[in-house]
Amino acid sequence: MSDPQPTTGAPGPADLASRAEALDAADELAKLRARFTLPDGVVYLDGNSLGALPAAVPDTTADVVRRQWGELLIRSWDESNWWTAPERIGDKLAPLVGAAPGQVVVGDSTSVNLFKALVGAARLAPPGRTQMLVDANTFPTDGYIAASAARMTGLRVVPVDPAAAAQAMGEDTAVVLLNHVDYRTGRLHDLPALTRAARAVGAITVWDLCHSAGALPVGLDAHGVDLAVGCTYKYLNGGPGSPAYLYIAGRHQDAFDSPLPGWNGHADPFAMTSGYTPAAGAVRGRVGTPDILSMLALEAALDAWDGVSVEAVRAKSLALTDFFLECVAAYVPQGRVRSVTPAEHAHRGSQISLSTDNAREVMAELISRGVIGDFRAPDVLRFGFTPLYVGFADAERAARTLGHIFG
Amino acid sequence: MSDPQPTTGAPGPADLASRAEALDAADELAKLRARFTLPDGVVYLDGNSLGALPAAVPDTTADVVRRQWGELLIRSWDESNWWTAPERIGDKLAPLVGAAPGQVVVGDSTSVNLFKALVGAARLAPPGRTQMLVDANTFPTDGYIAASAARMTGLRVVPVDPAAAAQAMGEDTAVVLLNHVDYRTGRLHDLPALTRAARAVGAITVWDLCHSAGALPVGLDAHGVDLAVGCTYKYLNGGPGSPAYLYIAGRHQDAFDSPLPGWNGHADPFAMTSGYTPAAGAVRGRVGTPDILSMLALEAALDAWDGVSVEAVRAKSLALTDFFLECVAAYVPQGRVRSVTPAEHAHRGSQISLSTDNAREVMAELISRGVIGDFRAPDVLRFGFTPLYVGFADAERAARTLGHIFG
Repeated sequence: MSDPQPTTGAPGPADLASRAEALDAADELAKLRARFTLPDGVVYLDGNSLGALPAAVPDTTADVVRRQWGELLIRSWDESNWWTAPERIGDKLAPLVGAAPGQVVVGDSTSVNLFKALVGAARLAPPGRTQMLVDANTFPTDGYIAASAARMTGLRVVPVDPAAAAQAMGEDTAVVLLNHVDYRTGRLHDLPALTRAARAVGAITVWDLCHSAGALPVGLDAHGVDLAVGCTYKYLNGGPGSPAYLYIAGRHQDAFDSPLPGWNGHADPFAMTSGYTPAAGAVRGRVGTPDILSMLALEAALDAWDGVSVEAVRAKSLALTDFFLECVAAYVPQGRVRSVTPAEHAHRGSQISLSTDNAREVMAELISRGVIGDFRAPDVLRFGFTPLYVGFADAERAARTLGHIFG
Repeated sequence: MSDPQPTTGAPGPADLASRAEALDAADELAKLRARFTLPDGVVYLDGNSLGALPAAVPDTTADVVRRQWGELLIRSWDESNWWTAPERIGDKLAPLVGAAPGQVVVGDSTSVNLFKALVGAARLAPPGRTQMLVDANTFPTDGYIAASAARMTGLRVVPVDPAAAAQAMGEDTAVVLLNHVDYRTGRLHDLPALTRAARAVGAITVWDLCHSAGALPVGLDAHGVDLAVGCTYKYLNGGPGSPAYLYIAGRHQDAFDSPLPGWNGHADPFAMTSGYTPAAGAVRGRVGTPDILSMLALEAALDAWDGVSVEAVRAKSLALTDFFLECVAAYVPQGRVRSVTPAEHAHRGSQISLSTDNAREVMAELISRGVIGDFRAPDVLRFGFTPLYVGFADAERAARTLGHIFG
């Protein structure tokens, strides 16, 4: 690796490009990019919105459609193991969020799972409490669903800044809903400490992992989280609108009382009895018939994680975002962008969000030049770094292209 | 067509086989079978559980995965029109259930849509009423979800036999949930009369169309239905676990208050505001990010309906089930099976359910001989007739095979 140019005090383009090359050459995860299909000439920094296509998915999907559905037809519910897919894929995903088997079930959207989790949490909380604390900067759907869950369980939503959430918790707190990583700023919240604080007052925690799972260690079991939800189409690369998941900690499963007790969550669904008896374990989080095409695409997508440690992914993610910030500082004229993502590693997810004027137009121009990030209102350029398929040369090119636009 | 043998008074095998051939030759819908991929040598009478694979689906799915997801990536939400799929496919499906555009939205499972519909119905009903009437013989998930919706809206579930439902309706009836066709017996309930009776007392109707849509005319608009749900993987051939749909009659849309107000149902989702403002129209029935793989497979599957009238499908369906019953009477020794499906056309859906001893084993034997129906506890052999791809020779072979098993 070359050092910054001594004559200017800041690295020049040649240095950064050659450093990127060296960093990629030394990157043990670089070979994982072959597990994905990415279009030529594109730097894809939007995996925090829609993950890239894992190379194994097209053949799996073709087999599911042509053979499992087209030839085996109804028999595939048993013979192709369709029926057990939600809990099987839940167990496959579980290590990525630090969950032992039997606690994660895949299906429905994040919003629907959030409703199950929040109503379930309200029913698990000590009786008589009135407050549902909700991240004031949450991704919108969480706030909308929380308002509905609170309305239907007699709780009152109290918006809180996650940084100050611990102080807001008390004897009247029934439920605490927080995002592990803020979708807009990329700020990583302190899941272990906030979960500890909630448990200390007897409140039930619900964590939204959409912007953290697959990018950094979560440690649901280790930190004593009660309930969690997340999507699978960002860092888990399950495909557009692929099914979300619900985590129900083992200690709560027997008492978890879902507001969506569909027949798939019944202890004996094909007995077709008129009374509902919930299944044991996380399976009671299932609702209706699972969408098999999307579900089995996700299962194949998760093969991209074979032999990959989340800790190694996290280390690369921080190196990538550090390097990107360094390149932005070198390439973009001072004052044109400002990072709203925390500089401290302990508070940073796997994205960098840059605030700027005319952000919508700037992002459109970046995309037209082959650098795909996204825009979030009102003024944010969002760049997600997926260590499984993004490299240091990508980070350098993205920053350099941004510099050209401002140049 | 040949007549029954005059010497015996009942048709013999040769007659039935040749009649089947003639009926197939005269069937104007017979050519539609080419729009489906069915395995050789199989008689598929389980389209009321999982519809067959439409021939257009595999190429569409491959394109969605490889090009729309793999190459266009995040851009496909706009460029491949992913974002508007739920309402676009809702409009494509709408004519099959007799709905004008703008009232049907596709997504989630039937169970989840039922929860939206039932809670929404409770909120639309005149205040102060306490009863939710629910089909006592309903498919189980409807009963489970109804119990949850009633619990969360302060209503009380009152089980009713659909045949006697009109008499049970009164000034205290808030919501009426009925199945258009009974999943077990194939009985067709009188949607126009029951809807009229509910409206006469000011109650809100929710119809479950899972076992009727795509098999017979529904006429949601014509009969003044308030809300309806259905799946798309039976007679609509959307694929395993393909997304369900929700119908919200135009007159109720402004007041429809969903318990699942996810960001996809917001008037301006990408403004990402903290307050929820529901979108106009049926779009407010959307919740989270739609599962695009399953959704676009369904869209392609619906092309199989191009130029097909539901009335013609209904006429063939009745002819098929009549003929099947005739073949069963001729081939199966008397007393071994009993049809629990109404003989009267006005009360018959598109299936025949035969009650028999050892039904589970009989169905397994039928399947091993290439005739696929299904078993429903405790004693029912269920045979679904999908006029788009089932012919009269199929019906004859199914009955003949059943006769051999009992022979």
